Amino acid sequence: MKQETIDRIRKFTEDRDWDQFHSPSNLVKSIVIEAAELLECFQWDDDDFDEQHVKEELADVLVYSRNLLDRLGFDEDEIVNMKMDQNEKKYPVDKARGSSSKYNQL
Amino acid sequence: MKQETIDRIRKFTEDRDWDQFHSPSNLVKSIVIEAAELLECFQWDDDDFDEQHVKEELADVLVYSRNLLDRLGFDEDEIVNMKMDQNEKKYPVDKARGSSSKYNQL
Amino acid sequence: MKQETIDRIRKFTEDRDWDQFHSPSNLVKSIVIEAAELLECFQWDDDDFDEQHVKEELADVLVYSRNLLDRLGFDEDEIVNMKMDQNEKKYPVDKARGSSSKYNQL
Amino acid sequence: MKQETIDRIRKFTEDRDWDQFHSPSNLVKSIVIEAAELLECFQWDDDDFDEQHVKEELADVLVYSRNLLDRLGFDEDEIVNMKMDQNEKKYPVDKARGSSSKYNQL
Repeated sequence: MKQETIDRIRKFTEDRDWDQFHSPSNLVKSIVIEAAELLECFQWDDDDFDEQHVKEELADVLVYSRNLLDRLGFDEDEIVNMKMDQNEKKYPVDKARGSSSKYNQL
Repeated sequence: MKQETIDRIRKFTEDRDWDQFHSPSNLVKSIVIEAAELLECFQWDDDDFDEQHVKEELADVLVYSRNLLDRLGFDEDEIVNMKMDQNEKKYPVDKARGSSSKYNQL
Repeated sequence: MKQETIDRIRKFTEDRDWDQFHSPSNLVKSIVIEAAELLECFQWDDDDFDEQHVKEELADVLVYSRNLLDRLGFDEDEIVNMKMDQNEKKYPVDKARGSSSKYNQL
Repeated sequence: MKQETIDRIRKFTEDRDWDQFHSPSNLVKSIVIEAAELLECFQWDDDDFDEQHVKEELADVLVYSRNLLDRLGFDEDEIVNMKMDQNEKKYPVDKARGSSSKYNQL
């Protein structure tokens, strides 16, 4: 996400004095709620979905995720790279290639 | 997210030939599943949480969201700014300031 | 659910003195978490699922739903029938038959 | 749930010819979506919630859970008792009493 987009999200919250509602647990609930609204785009059909609706709900997930990163002072690249380190170990290429099995069943 | 982090996520999927599993609906289910694992960090207590665990689960949400952006060819900044345009109209500062009410109840 | 099954769930909570953790919002988070674990049975494949695993996760959803009914003093049949009254009005047979559209798009 | 309530749910689906949409994975997605709508009742406040709204969303979870039991031919009491057997072993009273820790951390 570009810095100006991040700044816009921050200003949006600040202008409305919404920081008081943005406890970590409230933001996490919000991420779940928006993720489920995204899932609703695929409730009865996996393939025939409304692209505009998907964009809006995915954007909501991303905005609340950004709010949570901000609230907890996490660096997005740092935590994603930390997790990718773990993923690369849990799913070595030679074992995981072409398989959707969970790491503990590879 | 930095370009090199995005590239790392893409290479991870490519190396494992996992693109075949990454249908939009499967990725959306995955975002929901990881968001709920994030919620599990707050299941019995809103305030006393394991920060490292939160980092890992939030990272999973971000990685699958990136996978979905890639799969659908969406630009993160574009969809977030489109949604922020909507949010700014739905929640005008003078009405929404200091309130957690939904836009249709402001 | 039979009365003896309901009683067993209640006794389980009571014996462990877990009522203190069973606030409505904690139970709701728990329902969501278990529902997402149920979804995980279908994460990469809609049709090839582990039936035993599905039974366990669905049971978890049902147990936490029962805990919530108890906590809030709701009668299961009463709330379900109240909702079915609404559903029958929102989805009249002649309009809804054979369609998966949401009521506001029928 | 009383037999007549179960019968009403079944007739509702049948009258609308909705069995075609009720694949196990679609019903599971629906349970998740409704559980998240239930969570939305507690999005910004854990204690001040709209009881009528909670009733409606919990009822939706229960109705889709009933649909899934029917679709898979599961007996509610059987699967719940099977899971309670597991829970009683995972959470022995003397270890679990008064603790919200997960079984693998007791």
